[in-house]
Amino acid sequence: MSAANTFGRSFCVTTFGESHGPAIGCVIDGCPPGIAIAAEDFRHDLERRATGRSRFTSQRRETDEVEILSGVYQGRSTGTPIALLIRNTDARSKDYGDIALSFRPGHADYTYWHKYGIRDPRGGGRSSARETTMRVAAAVIAKRYLAEQHGIAIQAWLSGIGPYVPQRIERGSVEDNPLFWPDPSQLPEIEAYLDGLRKSGDSVGARLSVIAENVPVGLGEPIYGKLDSDIAMALMSINAVKAVEIGDGVAVCGQRGSEHRDELSAEGFRSNRAGGILGGISSGQNILAHAAIKPTSSILVPGQTLNTAGEASELVTRGRHDPCVGIRAVPIMEAMLALVLMDHVLRHRAQCGGVPPQTPRIAADPFNPETH
Amino acid sequence: MSAANTFGRSFCVTTFGESHGPAIGCVIDGCPPGIAIAAEDFRHDLERRATGRSRFTSQRRETDEVEILSGVYQGRSTGTPIALLIRNTDARSKDYGDIALSFRPGHADYTYWHKYGIRDPRGGGRSSARETTMRVAAAVIAKRYLAEQHGIAIQAWLSGIGPYVPQRIERGSVEDNPLFWPDPSQLPEIEAYLDGLRKSGDSVGARLSVIAENVPVGLGEPIYGKLDSDIAMALMSINAVKAVEIGDGVAVCGQRGSEHRDELSAEGFRSNRAGGILGGISSGQNILAHAAIKPTSSILVPGQTLNTAGEASELVTRGRHDPCVGIRAVPIMEAMLALVLMDHVLRHRAQCGGVPPQTPRIAADPFNPETH
Amino acid sequence: MSAANTFGRSFCVTTFGESHGPAIGCVIDGCPPGIAIAAEDFRHDLERRATGRSRFTSQRRETDEVEILSGVYQGRSTGTPIALLIRNTDARSKDYGDIALSFRPGHADYTYWHKYGIRDPRGGGRSSARETTMRVAAAVIAKRYLAEQHGIAIQAWLSGIGPYVPQRIERGSVEDNPLFWPDPSQLPEIEAYLDGLRKSGDSVGARLSVIAENVPVGLGEPIYGKLDSDIAMALMSINAVKAVEIGDGVAVCGQRGSEHRDELSAEGFRSNRAGGILGGISSGQNILAHAAIKPTSSILVPGQTLNTAGEASELVTRGRHDPCVGIRAVPIMEAMLALVLMDHVLRHRAQCGGVPPQTPRIAADPFNPETH
Amino acid sequence: MSAANTFGRSFCVTTFGESHGPAIGCVIDGCPPGIAIAAEDFRHDLERRATGRSRFTSQRRETDEVEILSGVYQGRSTGTPIALLIRNTDARSKDYGDIALSFRPGHADYTYWHKYGIRDPRGGGRSSARETTMRVAAAVIAKRYLAEQHGIAIQAWLSGIGPYVPQRIERGSVEDNPLFWPDPSQLPEIEAYLDGLRKSGDSVGARLSVIAENVPVGLGEPIYGKLDSDIAMALMSINAVKAVEIGDGVAVCGQRGSEHRDELSAEGFRSNRAGGILGGISSGQNILAHAAIKPTSSILVPGQTLNTAGEASELVTRGRHDPCVGIRAVPIMEAMLALVLMDHVLRHRAQCGGVPPQTPRIAADPFNPETH
Repeated sequence: MSAANTFGRSFCVTTFGESHGPAIGCVIDGCPPGIAIAAEDFRHDLERRATGRSRFTSQRRETDEVEILSGVYQGRSTGTPIALLIRNTDARSKDYGDIALSFRPGHADYTYWHKYGIRDPRGGGRSSARETTMRVAAAVIAKRYLAEQHGIAIQAWLSGIGPYVPQRIERGSVEDNPLFWPDPSQLPEIEAYLDGLRKSGDSVGARLSVIAENVPVGLGEPIYGKLDSDIAMALMSINAVKAVEIGDGVAVCGQRGSEHRDELSAEGFRSNRAGGILGGISSGQNILAHAAIKPTSSILVPGQTLNTAGEASELVTRGRHDPCVGIRAVPIMEAMLALVLMDHVLRHRAQCGGVPPQTPRIAADPFNPETH
Repeated sequence: MSAANTFGRSFCVTTFGESHGPAIGCVIDGCPPGIAIAAEDFRHDLERRATGRSRFTSQRRETDEVEILSGVYQGRSTGTPIALLIRNTDARSKDYGDIALSFRPGHADYTYWHKYGIRDPRGGGRSSARETTMRVAAAVIAKRYLAEQHGIAIQAWLSGIGPYVPQRIERGSVEDNPLFWPDPSQLPEIEAYLDGLRKSGDSVGARLSVIAENVPVGLGEPIYGKLDSDIAMALMSINAVKAVEIGDGVAVCGQRGSEHRDELSAEGFRSNRAGGILGGISSGQNILAHAAIKPTSSILVPGQTLNTAGEASELVTRGRHDPCVGIRAVPIMEAMLALVLMDHVLRHRAQCGGVPPQTPRIAADPFNPETH
Repeated sequence: MSAANTFGRSFCVTTFGESHGPAIGCVIDGCPPGIAIAAEDFRHDLERRATGRSRFTSQRRETDEVEILSGVYQGRSTGTPIALLIRNTDARSKDYGDIALSFRPGHADYTYWHKYGIRDPRGGGRSSARETTMRVAAAVIAKRYLAEQHGIAIQAWLSGIGPYVPQRIERGSVEDNPLFWPDPSQLPEIEAYLDGLRKSGDSVGARLSVIAENVPVGLGEPIYGKLDSDIAMALMSINAVKAVEIGDGVAVCGQRGSEHRDELSAEGFRSNRAGGILGGISSGQNILAHAAIKPTSSILVPGQTLNTAGEASELVTRGRHDPCVGIRAVPIMEAMLALVLMDHVLRHRAQCGGVPPQTPRIAADPFNPETH
Repeated sequence: MSAANTFGRSFCVTTFGESHGPAIGCVIDGCPPGIAIAAEDFRHDLERRATGRSRFTSQRRETDEVEILSGVYQGRSTGTPIALLIRNTDARSKDYGDIALSFRPGHADYTYWHKYGIRDPRGGGRSSARETTMRVAAAVIAKRYLAEQHGIAIQAWLSGIGPYVPQRIERGSVEDNPLFWPDPSQLPEIEAYLDGLRKSGDSVGARLSVIAENVPVGLGEPIYGKLDSDIAMALMSINAVKAVEIGDGVAVCGQRGSEHRDELSAEGFRSNRAGGILGGISSGQNILAHAAIKPTSSILVPGQTLNTAGEASELVTRGRHDPCVGIRAVPIMEAMLALVLMDHVLRHRAQCGGVPPQTPRIAADPFNPETH
C-alpha cells in the first residue's frame, strides 16, 4: 500500500470517485497476465451488492455497467493496469442539498470537513459506500484467479442482525434470500422485524462472516504483513465496520489454552479455532473471519447536530438509505478477503517461489456451525 | 509499509531478530529531528513489558538494555535512521531442543515450516513475542513526540481475563498491580484463579483496552489508510490477538441507528460510541480500541501433534511461559496505537499541512466505563 | 511508489491506458485539498506535448480533452483521489495490424511479449509515449501548487539534436518555436536538417534540459530517496531516455575537486556545478537536470527483425511517427521534475514540518549558459 | 521502497548508521529462504570497497567485520529479516571537530543542516560514503542468489578518470590493479597522475561502468518501475554520482534511428546499443550501465565557505580522504545493480510467475569495448 486509496502491495487496487460525481472507478495494477476478463463478468457480484435489490436496501437504482478502459486485449489481461469505470447514473444530488452545511451525526461529514477544510456533501461524497462497488468489481478478477489457480472458494453471509443470530448455518441457502441469511427458518420473523424497523425510520447493526476454502498453506508475511493483520485492515476499511474477528474471535478471551489450540493428528488438524491462520500464516485450513457493522446513521429519526458555522441544529437524513447496511456488505466481505488472498498469493510467490511445496495435513474441515 | 517487517509509512519501524538469536533490534526511519532520546528512556516501558515481572508471567529474565546505534547526536534525533539494539542474554536454547522436529499445536511452527521450508525453532524464533520488545522501544519515541507536540496520552489495561470482567474502571490504579487490572477489588480473586491455572499447567485468554486522549481531529486517510483500519492491522499483528474492536465494537450488531450515532450539541459530541473515529478519520474524541488475545498454546498439558516427518506424536511444551500472555500485551497495545498515531500525524501533515486548523467541538469526554 | 504504474510516495500518480485502447487516464492520490482545478487548465501543457503540432512531430491528431471524474468539488481539490480521463479518438489501429506478429527493432514489443506472454500491439499499447500525456496532465496540478505555495517555476528546452548544440541559451525564446530550441539563430539550419531527415525516413536523438527555480532548501530524503535519485528515476522512466545528468553531469569526470565544488561566500553559493542538489537534498539553488533521448526506432528505413514464431523478417514501421521524439519530450521533462518536487515538498513536510525554517544563502543564481 | 533509507520493494534493504557513530548496519527483508550465508562471505567485496587498500584511497583502516544478528539459522537464510552489523572501530572524530560549525563546500553539511535543523558533523555523519559498506554487504547475498538461480554475473570497472579513458577493455585484468582499471598499459601513467594530484591536495572525477551477464528476459515493470529507471535511481543514489547512462547513454543524442536500433536476426540481436533494456524490460542481452562521479570535495586546497552563524570563512578539509572516490565506487556499482536485479527477479515472479517461459534470442553478445 503506498497511498490511502490503494489496496494491496502486489495486486494493487486504486479506487476513485464520489457517490454523486460523474463516475467511480478503479485501476488494478500488478495483475497477472492471461486472465480471461469481460465486462459481463462483473455483473453478478455487482448486482448482489447493488441497492434496490429488495425492500430492505436503499431504493437508489444503480445500473453499474462496467466499462473496461485498459489492460485487457482480446479478452485477456495483459499485465498492464486494468482500469474499470462505472458512470453514476442515478445520483439525485438535490436530496442532499440541505445537509451541505450540517454534519450528519455518525457520518464522516464532520471529520472530512475538519481534515480537508472542504468536502463534497453530495451523497456522502467519497465516504459513501458507493466506493465499495469498485472493490467488488476488482475482486471479481481476484476471485477468478484464486479459483482457477488454487481452487479457492470464498463465501460470505449475514451471521447476526439486531437481536437475531442464526440457529444453524445452511450455506447453500444463503443466496436464496435477499438477506444472505443462512437459516431459512428464521426469515419470516426477521423480515417482519426489518419491516417494522423501516417503518419507524430507524436502522440496526449486523454481523457478517466470510469463509475461504482450499487456501494453500503459507500465505501471509510476518510480522506486519500477517495474513490476519491484513484481513483485519481490509475488513475494518469497509464502511461502518467496528470490529473484526478471526476464527473464534472475541470468544478466545474466555478459553483455556488446552481448549483453544488446534491439535494435530495424522489426518491433520482436529479443530479450527484459529480460523485457518497461525503466526500470521495460513495453515491450509479454512480461513474464517467476521465483522460487526454498525447501524447506518442515515435515518429518519431526527438527531441533534452542528452546522459548519458551529451552531446546534436538528437534522433528519432524507434520501434513500438502507435499514441495515450490513446486508449489502456481504459481497464486500468476500471482495476484501479475495483481495487480501490475491495479494498474498503473489507476495508469497515473490519471496518463496522457489521453496519446494510441502504437503500440509488438513483433516476434513467441514464448516463448523457451532462457532460461527 | 513496504516490506513485511516494517510498520508505518511515514514513521517506519523495521524490526529484526529471533527469540534466541544473538540480538533483536529495530530501525526507525522518518523520525522527525530534534527529539530528545537517551538509552534510559526505554527502560520504563520495556520493564512493563518484560517477563519475570511477577509470578504471572514467564520467568525468563530479560534485561533488555537498549543500545542506540545511530540517528541520535548529542541527545537529539537527527532525522536519519535510529537503530536500537538489544542483545539476547538469557536465551536457554536447550529448553527447545526437543521441539525442533515437532510442531507445537497452536503455534507458528507448522506454518513457518511450510512457508519457508526452514525455521529457527529456538524459542519460537521470529514468531516469538520477544519481537514485540522492539515495538515497545520504538513507541517510546513516538509517545514522546505525540505528548510533546499534541499532548496525546495513551494508556492500556486488561479489560477481561478468562471469566472475569472489571466491574469498574479505575484507570489510576492500573499501574499499581502486575495484572494491569483496573478494578482493584477483584484482584485477590483473579490472582487466586491464575495461581490455580498455573498449577494446572494451563493458560487463559484475555481482553485488552487502550485509550488515546487529546488526539487532534483529522488523522486518518480514507479509504484504505483509515485510522481504524490501521489500528486494526496494528493490533491484529500483536502475537495471539484474534479480534479487534473500535469503540463499541462487536456490540454495534445489536444497536439501533438512533442509539449508536453520536449526536452533536453546541458543546460537542454527546457520546462516543464510535471510539473517536468517523469515516476513518479521528473526530477529536478519545480513541478507544480493544483486542482479544488467545490463551498461550505453550502449556504443560500434553497435546497431540505432528512432527516434520508427518508422524503423530504427543508434545508437552516445557520452557518458561506465561499463564496469560495478555498481561504483558498491555504496553504492546499502547505501543501499537502510538505507532499508528505517530505515522498518521506525519501523513496528515504531508497532505493537509496547509489546511487552516478548524477547532473541533469536543464535549467533555470523560472515560465512559460502561462500554469498556 | 507501491506499484509499477504509480509515481510518487506522497503525491501519487497512477496512470493507465494503451495507445489505441478506449482511453488513457490517471488517478492522483494524496493531493492537498483546496487547489483550484478546472478541465481547461490542462489544455496548455497537453497541446505543447501533443502530436500534430508541427511538421516535425507525428501527424496523429490528439484532441486530448480531459474529463475530471472525481476529487474536485466546486472547482477545488477535496483531498480525495482526482481521476482524469482522456478518450482516444484518433486511434487508427489498422496501421499496426501488420506488426502484431513481428517485433519492431528498438521497441518494447520483444520484451513485453517475453515478459507477459501476451501484448497489445496496437500503436505500441502500453509502451507508447501516449502514456506520457497523463504525466503532463497530473503535473499541471503539481506545477500550480508549487508555483502558488513556493513560487517554483519549471522550464525545459531542447539542448541538443543530432549534431547541433545551442550556441547560446535564450530561455525567453524557447516557446516561440516548435522545436523548443533556445538559440533562434540556428533554427533555419536545424529545420532544414530535420526536413532532410524526415524525407530519408530516418530519425535522430536529442538532449533535453530542465530547470527549476525558487526551490526551497531541504527537499530530498537520503539515502535512497535522494532528490537527484528520484529525478534520475523520473527522467529515465520517460520513453526513449538513455541518460540522465544532474548539474554538470558527465563532465564531472574530467573536473578537479577545487574546480567542481561550489564555494560559499557571504552572498551565497558562488557557482552551481552541483545542479542545486548536495547530498541528495536541494540546496536552494536552481535545480538543473538533463536527459539524452534516443532516436525513435519507428522509421521508414527497413530493418531486420524476428516474428513471434522466431523467424527472421524485414520490417518497415509505417504509421505516424516523429523524426525526433525528443521535441515532444520537453513538457514531459517539466512534468516529471514537477512531480518529483511536489512529492518531496509533501514528504519533507511530513518529517520535518516542525523544523524552524532557516534562511539559505543563495547568491544571484542566473542561468549559466556555459554548462548547459 | 517505503522509506528513504530502504532500497527495493520485494528484496528490501534498510541501512542505518553514521560514519563515526557506534556502528553501521542493515536489515534485509523479503530475502528468499534457504540461501547459504556465513559471516566470512562478506569479506571479499568489503575489502574491495574498503579504504586503506592502496595509496590512492583514504588511509582510514576499516576492518569491517560483519556480524549476522538475525535471519540465518544453521547457515541458511530463513526468510525472516537478516540484520548485519559492523562496528565502527577507527573513527577519529577529533579530526572533524573544527568543521562542526562550518559547511564544507561541495558537501551535504549545508543541506542537512537546513533540512533537519541539526546534523552529526563527525566524518560526514550519515552522508558519508561509509554507508555504502552496507549496500555492498547486502548485495553479497543478492549476487549469490542471482548467480545460483540464474547464472547472472556482475562486474564493474573504472572507465574514465580525469583526462584518461581506457584504450581497450580487458575485463580479466580489472581486479589485478588497485584502480580497477581495464587497460593495464595505461596504469603507470595514471598512477603518476594520481600521485601528483594527491601531492597537490586536489582530487579528480571518474567514470564507472558495470555489466550484468546472463540476465533473463522479462525483468522490469513499466511504467515507473522500469528496469532502467530503477538502475538510474540506484546508481544516482551512490555518493557523488552526477550522471547515469544506460547502453550508449549520452551518445544517443547524435545517433540516427537506423543506427541506434538493435536489429534482430535468426541468431538474435545483432548489436546492443540499448544496454540490454527495451521499454524498461530486460531483453536478455547484457545489461550495461555507467555513472559519472564527481571529484571529492574533501581536499587540502582551501575553500571559501560559510559557518552556521552565516559568516564567511576559509576551510581546509583535513582528515583522511580519497584523491578519487570513484575508485572505491567500483564494488558499489556492482552492489546497486545486483540489488536492482534481485528486487526485479522477485517482483517478476510475483506478477508473472505463471507465464510459460519463452526462449529469447540472444546472439553471442561479447562485451563490446567500442562503446564503453
